[in-house]
Amino acid sequence: MQQYDLPLSELKKYKPDLTRQEDFEEFWKDSLKELQKTKLSYQLLEYKYPVKGIKVYKILYKGFNNADIDGWFVIPEGDGKHPGVVTYHGYNWAFDGNLHRTVDLALKGYAVLHMLTRGQQGMSADNVVSSSGFPAGWLTKGILDKNEYYYRGVYLDAVRAVEVLASMDGVDSTRIGVMGSSQGGAITLAVSALSDIPKVALAEYPFLSNFERAVEITPTGPYLEIPEFFRRNSAPEIEEKAMKTLTYFDVMNLAPWIKCHTWICIGLVDQITPPSTVFAAYNHLNCKKDISIFKYFGHEYIPGAVEPQLKLLMDILQK
Amino acid sequence: MQQYDLPLSELKKYKPDLTRQEDFEEFWKDSLKELQKTKLSYQLLEYKYPVKGIKVYKILYKGFNNADIDGWFVIPEGDGKHPGVVTYHGYNWAFDGNLHRTVDLALKGYAVLHMLTRGQQGMSADNVVSSSGFPAGWLTKGILDKNEYYYRGVYLDAVRAVEVLASMDGVDSTRIGVMGSSQGGAITLAVSALSDIPKVALAEYPFLSNFERAVEITPTGPYLEIPEFFRRNSAPEIEEKAMKTLTYFDVMNLAPWIKCHTWICIGLVDQITPPSTVFAAYNHLNCKKDISIFKYFGHEYIPGAVEPQLKLLMDILQK
Amino acid sequence: MQQYDLPLSELKKYKPDLTRQEDFEEFWKDSLKELQKTKLSYQLLEYKYPVKGIKVYKILYKGFNNADIDGWFVIPEGDGKHPGVVTYHGYNWAFDGNLHRTVDLALKGYAVLHMLTRGQQGMSADNVVSSSGFPAGWLTKGILDKNEYYYRGVYLDAVRAVEVLASMDGVDSTRIGVMGSSQGGAITLAVSALSDIPKVALAEYPFLSNFERAVEITPTGPYLEIPEFFRRNSAPEIEEKAMKTLTYFDVMNLAPWIKCHTWICIGLVDQITPPSTVFAAYNHLNCKKDISIFKYFGHEYIPGAVEPQLKLLMDILQK
Amino acid sequence: MQQYDLPLSELKKYKPDLTRQEDFEEFWKDSLKELQKTKLSYQLLEYKYPVKGIKVYKILYKGFNNADIDGWFVIPEGDGKHPGVVTYHGYNWAFDGNLHRTVDLALKGYAVLHMLTRGQQGMSADNVVSSSGFPAGWLTKGILDKNEYYYRGVYLDAVRAVEVLASMDGVDSTRIGVMGSSQGGAITLAVSALSDIPKVALAEYPFLSNFERAVEITPTGPYLEIPEFFRRNSAPEIEEKAMKTLTYFDVMNLAPWIKCHTWICIGLVDQITPPSTVFAAYNHLNCKKDISIFKYFGHEYIPGAVEPQLKLLMDILQK
Amino acid sequence: MQQYDLPLSELKKYKPDLTRQEDFEEFWKDSLKELQKTKLSYQLLEYKYPVKGIKVYKILYKGFNNADIDGWFVIPEGDGKHPGVVTYHGYNWAFDGNLHRTVDLALKGYAVLHMLTRGQQGMSADNVVSSSGFPAGWLTKGILDKNEYYYRGVYLDAVRAVEVLASMDGVDSTRIGVMGSSQGGAITLAVSALSDIPKVALAEYPFLSNFERAVEITPTGPYLEIPEFFRRNSAPEIEEKAMKTLTYFDVMNLAPWIKCHTWICIGLVDQITPPSTVFAAYNHLNCKKDISIFKYFGHEYIPGAVEPQLKLLMDILQK
Amino acid sequence: MQQYDLPLSELKKYKPDLTRQEDFEEFWKDSLKELQKTKLSYQLLEYKYPVKGIKVYKILYKGFNNADIDGWFVIPEGDGKHPGVVTYHGYNWAFDGNLHRTVDLALKGYAVLHMLTRGQQGMSADNVVSSSGFPAGWLTKGILDKNEYYYRGVYLDAVRAVEVLASMDGVDSTRIGVMGSSQGGAITLAVSALSDIPKVALAEYPFLSNFERAVEITPTGPYLEIPEFFRRNSAPEIEEKAMKTLTYFDVMNLAPWIKCHTWICIGLVDQITPPSTVFAAYNHLNCKKDISIFKYFGHEYIPGAVEPQLKLLMDILQK
Repeated sequence: MQQYDLPLSELKKYKPDLTRQEDFEEFWKDSLKELQKTKLSYQLLEYKYPVKGIKVYKILYKGFNNADIDGWFVIPEGDGKHPGVVTYHGYNWAFDGNLHRTVDLALKGYAVLHMLTRGQQGMSADNVVSSSGFPAGWLTKGILDKNEYYYRGVYLDAVRAVEVLASMDGVDSTRIGVMGSSQGGAITLAVSALSDIPKVALAEYPFLSNFERAVEITPTGPYLEIPEFFRRNSAPEIEEKAMKTLTYFDVMNLAPWIKCHTWICIGLVDQITPPSTVFAAYNHLNCKKDISIFKYFGHEYIPGAVEPQLKLLMDILQK
Repeated sequence: MQQYDLPLSELKKYKPDLTRQEDFEEFWKDSLKELQKTKLSYQLLEYKYPVKGIKVYKILYKGFNNADIDGWFVIPEGDGKHPGVVTYHGYNWAFDGNLHRTVDLALKGYAVLHMLTRGQQGMSADNVVSSSGFPAGWLTKGILDKNEYYYRGVYLDAVRAVEVLASMDGVDSTRIGVMGSSQGGAITLAVSALSDIPKVALAEYPFLSNFERAVEITPTGPYLEIPEFFRRNSAPEIEEKAMKTLTYFDVMNLAPWIKCHTWICIGLVDQITPPSTVFAAYNHLNCKKDISIFKYFGHEYIPGAVEPQLKLLMDILQK
Repeated sequence: MQQYDLPLSELKKYKPDLTRQEDFEEFWKDSLKELQKTKLSYQLLEYKYPVKGIKVYKILYKGFNNADIDGWFVIPEGDGKHPGVVTYHGYNWAFDGNLHRTVDLALKGYAVLHMLTRGQQGMSADNVVSSSGFPAGWLTKGILDKNEYYYRGVYLDAVRAVEVLASMDGVDSTRIGVMGSSQGGAITLAVSALSDIPKVALAEYPFLSNFERAVEITPTGPYLEIPEFFRRNSAPEIEEKAMKTLTYFDVMNLAPWIKCHTWICIGLVDQITPPSTVFAAYNHLNCKKDISIFKYFGHEYIPGAVEPQLKLLMDILQK
Repeated sequence: MQQYDLPLSELKKYKPDLTRQEDFEEFWKDSLKELQKTKLSYQLLEYKYPVKGIKVYKILYKGFNNADIDGWFVIPEGDGKHPGVVTYHGYNWAFDGNLHRTVDLALKGYAVLHMLTRGQQGMSADNVVSSSGFPAGWLTKGILDKNEYYYRGVYLDAVRAVEVLASMDGVDSTRIGVMGSSQGGAITLAVSALSDIPKVALAEYPFLSNFERAVEITPTGPYLEIPEFFRRNSAPEIEEKAMKTLTYFDVMNLAPWIKCHTWICIGLVDQITPPSTVFAAYNHLNCKKDISIFKYFGHEYIPGAVEPQLKLLMDILQK
Repeated sequence: MQQYDLPLSELKKYKPDLTRQEDFEEFWKDSLKELQKTKLSYQLLEYKYPVKGIKVYKILYKGFNNADIDGWFVIPEGDGKHPGVVTYHGYNWAFDGNLHRTVDLALKGYAVLHMLTRGQQGMSADNVVSSSGFPAGWLTKGILDKNEYYYRGVYLDAVRAVEVLASMDGVDSTRIGVMGSSQGGAITLAVSALSDIPKVALAEYPFLSNFERAVEITPTGPYLEIPEFFRRNSAPEIEEKAMKTLTYFDVMNLAPWIKCHTWICIGLVDQITPPSTVFAAYNHLNCKKDISIFKYFGHEYIPGAVEPQLKLLMDILQK
Repeated sequence: MQQYDLPLSELKKYKPDLTRQEDFEEFWKDSLKELQKTKLSYQLLEYKYPVKGIKVYKILYKGFNNADIDGWFVIPEGDGKHPGVVTYHGYNWAFDGNLHRTVDLALKGYAVLHMLTRGQQGMSADNVVSSSGFPAGWLTKGILDKNEYYYRGVYLDAVRAVEVLASMDGVDSTRIGVMGSSQGGAITLAVSALSDIPKVALAEYPFLSNFERAVEITPTGPYLEIPEFFRRNSAPEIEEKAMKTLTYFDVMNLAPWIKCHTWICIGLVDQITPPSTVFAAYNHLNCKKDISIFKYFGHEYIPGAVEPQLKLLMDILQK
């Protein structure tokens, strides 16, 4: 069972220089301002789910650029304010919108909002047009312009999701967490950097981190869309421009802004989000933080990662 | 997306002759008697799981041949009798014993006992010795003698699991179901045939059915252990003897004995438990029954199969 | 070398019923009207290519919904009107926009316009927003609404490309052909059905034909995005709705409208556009037509298909 | 043809520290004593094989824990004492019990006993019960208790096989060798360490050596059962306990006890028993020893390894 | 374990029409005459092999077109005439010339000559020049001219091998057999058809039979060189010419000429020499014949095929 | 996207010692003399190709050892002397002889002769007999004798091709270039070293360079035929002899003799001709030279490599 990335001792110290552009902070301030142009608004539609003790709703809220964003909202029955969790799914991976997982988390005592990523699932519409073509997938959609880049909308939809949850009657806006795996882990970190609402962030093997290294070493999975884009568009200035756009969305560059308690996990044989790219983000966190390392696991369901997360949620949100 | 087995219209009618030997009934009567030699006995060890509203225990009970059988037991807090479910896992597939799934089901209002299959997981000891060698796996363990065959112990451990659950204080013995996927689905059906306790049986793409056809057409997965055994042991009389042993454990042969409401599902591109072998069992059921068919799914997590199961559990066990 | 589809003798007779909806004709009339809302407009930017005897330009024209559509335009030097060809590329497959192929065709005496498919390549912008999410790729983009479906824009951009070429000074608008492979072959057929300009259509192993069968039997490639969409969205009414949308774009349904001489080719071991789906379109053609069949070729460059195409172009456009 | 392990110059020097526990010697002394509780006993059943000059028998002898151990015994016709060889097969790899190979070796002038490994082949019964479950295979059977570990029985059965052969009338007990490949090579080395009978040991690419490194670097094959076990049982104390058990059976730890002339071979592109793990054992041998290195071979039949073995057998056993 | 060819009941009756050309018989008569132009001549070079009771020689004899043909010759020690066997190896598969297998057969009491196929192994020179190019391999070498076709030389070398063995002092020319697997099986059958010397022929899963069907259905292996040739040379007249050449070398067409007792075997999941192509030859045999069928084996070592062969050799050659 | 060879900074400096034998120069002088024994002679057969402005011919010329060498010759219409290019194809890769590519280059203003490599394609006859057998392919044909080695004939045929083109009426013998990819790139370099005619050499990812390293590190492709030969022939003296033969044909050893302007390209993820082996040749060039490096490309069509080549041809041959 061969590890292909750096040995663990080096991973723990791996902290590449940030690649933020000069206007990095300004870009995100402006983007958050632009998000505020869309008023907070959502609709709930009750869904009959064969379990007692919770209420299940289809939710549709307005995301960045006024896009319709689809999701599930599940809340324990009973009066009072519940702690809340916003969850984000992996890249292109949310069968039937992850309804069942959302229910299972709500049954643990949380009001859960599961955001369906724009363009990928459900009725979440990706309404930012890319003025350049790109290979199948979303990783290079809009990559030649930071304002068009796909994940700008996604990160901001995700910030709005937290705001939506915090605005709800049955939810205690002071006890809200965010969590997700892979793409969902990246969004989790981005939201924690861009919003003050989350009190805890749980990111399993986060994606979208340390793009420069990811392009060089990732053996398989969606990071390969980036070199694929360069194969289709071989002018060197295109590569330069694209790599510059990515710096704005690199979770590593956002990590230092996170203030809430953050937990990350990574499997050492993960071939999709290489361990070093995950440590790059982790080692740039300045908040309270933990990392769970799984020597024999890759980019997959890691049973050993469940209890640390449930425990942290309970300690921070249910105390 | 090519289906390789019979077309759906033929699957619905596919009902091969049963392959029961003359002493089929006698064999199972004797086996159940032999199970009774081991007294019902179990131990619970509390396990601190970071979720409120349930109690989680490691359980160790005495199975067939007095073997220690390991598992998880999770029960909702609160007085009164809870409905119960015994769950069985897939072949060689129970990471950390499926603790988290067991918890998630219990949170839906059931006292859940998850049996870890002997020899495969946890501290479940497979104490029946096979007097013949076999390729890696369990499918041909003891295959030359029906009394030594691996699944004799497994099925009987599973019957005992139901008896254990039914004996518990907090459990309503008149409202018990059984469920599982693949190997777990086969065990579910076998238990429902061999015990009167279950009131509902939920079997996702059950394994161990219609062995004769399975050996001929299965493209991949553990059924291939059987031809592998015949490759290692090429005498024709060995093949004959082995195939005869399997008839005693063929879920298709047990199916007519089931009396409780039974639900089965199958994906039409399942390459591990071919659809026809599943219909073979289904079409021999004489009880109240339903089948859910998933055209685009194989041997995997099928999100569309969750609600039918939860609904049936609720309708039968929580009414 | 096993063929997996129907035997050749059956392929030749394979003519499934059309699946046109009642408003099929109306839909396309309306769509063409909507195209006319965007005025014909294009820009040329000279590109220095190291070959004598031709002029090479980057072209940007306005496509459906006023989208910018990128491409190459190459025209032989010399006065007078040249015959013209519009070419369309395969799905997600146009490295550096196929500049070199475009040059090579122009050197054979044609004014060639190569359209870069919206969203896939170059600066061709896909500006129709899908109100539903979809798996990576374009095959299910907008699939729940015929007016949003991805290929509506693509087919209409392609019609406009022909109009652009026909409008050019150095081009003889009475001698224009269309050609392409796979996705490009499907577009070729669609354009020939929707526009009177083309005098000859050359479609190598056309994609997007006979969707119903394609979904059932295709072993690999982008047709699988459709069942993947159904896996992610398992409600039966979604499948029904999506399959209905596809009927409007099924090249088989458009084929009877084609009036110009049409040539198609197919390899009998093609695993991406199954031979039967290609014959489905071919057998519904009512125009002058030829088919070249390649027993030992799949979805790939077929050298034996080059001369038939060049000869037909010469016979029809250069005589 | 890429080597993935250490370069040859480093392999030659690779000698990791032994990982013997304090009671290593005691454990094996006790185990050998326990073996002596089972009296030497065997049965021969003549088998009609269509070759002249030899006699072929099915043999059944009593192994460790009084288990029935199956095998073939082939002896040249003719009076007098023949030199003898005990052979052991690879992991899970003995089609029809390797009858034909056994015959072919006997025809070269040796009384050959081929042991069928308990649980894996023929009627060799694995009668030690593991109190823990494990993934398919034998590598982690009983791994949580050195007295239950699978290879304890196997090594001791193998010692007994040598004693059985030495006890036979037609065999010269002073001229006995042992040999095998992969698992058979590991057993060969273990027997040579645990018994004084063998005068020569021939081990092709021996398995079960230097477990710590094997777990880290092996790309494929049965060593992966060990990390698979840790994936199923993720508690760190289980990993620690299991790795400790393995030290008792690590051929590297047994190697220093071998006194007879020992030959080993290894292919430098072996992906199942990595070259370094084999050199780890070789470099700890204190006996007369040779190693044959095959640059272009992996874990497979190596024709160049045949003559060195036959020559050594002849030189030592037939002189 | 899916069979892909005809079901066994149909295989047993599968007897396609012979495809012999009019001059088939004449061609082979002329070819045998041409062979006689090369005088029978061979050299032996003793080779020191570490086994007693046999003598081992490197042999070099003159084959068709006076080519040097290399091989091994192994003969039991002792006076008198020994029965003889000529063996032929599989396509491109004779590591170190199969010395060890040759020794092992000789130890069973036969003078064995193992021919190394021209061009493929050892110092066997393929001195017939093909006036056409061909893809890597030998199956289409010289395919446009029956006098240049590769297997013409091979079959005739093989006839000469039998003549060489029959001419030797220590060999009883009335007791000679031929045997081989795959390519060696095809050669075995061809020699038995073209020479009166062999008294028994043993062909494991023979290659080069029923080319027309082989080209259509073979999933993998060297038959695919033929369609590969047609892919490189797409003119239909080339395909016609090539397929006609193959008829002269199709073992099915030679089969009716065989007079000695012939044994064939085939595995029903053989993907390299499809079962039907083997039955095509078998069902055209007019001699005394047997076939061994292995349901669970493919193109590989089949242990169950050893004893039938040794028994037949013994019955016919050693009685 | 992982690079497996040296990092770019090291590649740029990678210059292993030449491995020329003492008689390296003499060998090639003698070989060129031997080539002169075959008189320059060729035949043209007009071929009707459906394009205007060029004439297309099948050419058959006499190559080394008087072999017939097949090819295409395409020349622009019009009087006067045209610049010429000889092109060579990749290993075993010239569907229908690359007619269409040859036409496309001629349309750019060159008289183009495309040589079909002996034995591999068309009617090019490989009439040098190898006195040793070899695995399928050409890389080890004749490898035990430098005078029999396959590429001796190929390189000399290629020199003759240049002489043939230079001798033609419509061709300006002072303006001739050579080009090819992979095997064609190796031949391009060899011809440039052995002939004074070429004025420019364009070699895409040249094969047959730095054999010693190629054997060690190449992950896939035809270099593996060499270790495969050593697997079949395991005597160490054979390996030594073979590796010595290869030194005469190693493009790295020929590189210092090249005098014309030479352009090479390589993709950094090329798994068939490892980047280091290409740099080994490039770094030994003493002529005017350029290298184009493609970070995201392997052994495939590289669109970015087209214009540099056309530009260099134009600059040197058309000025």
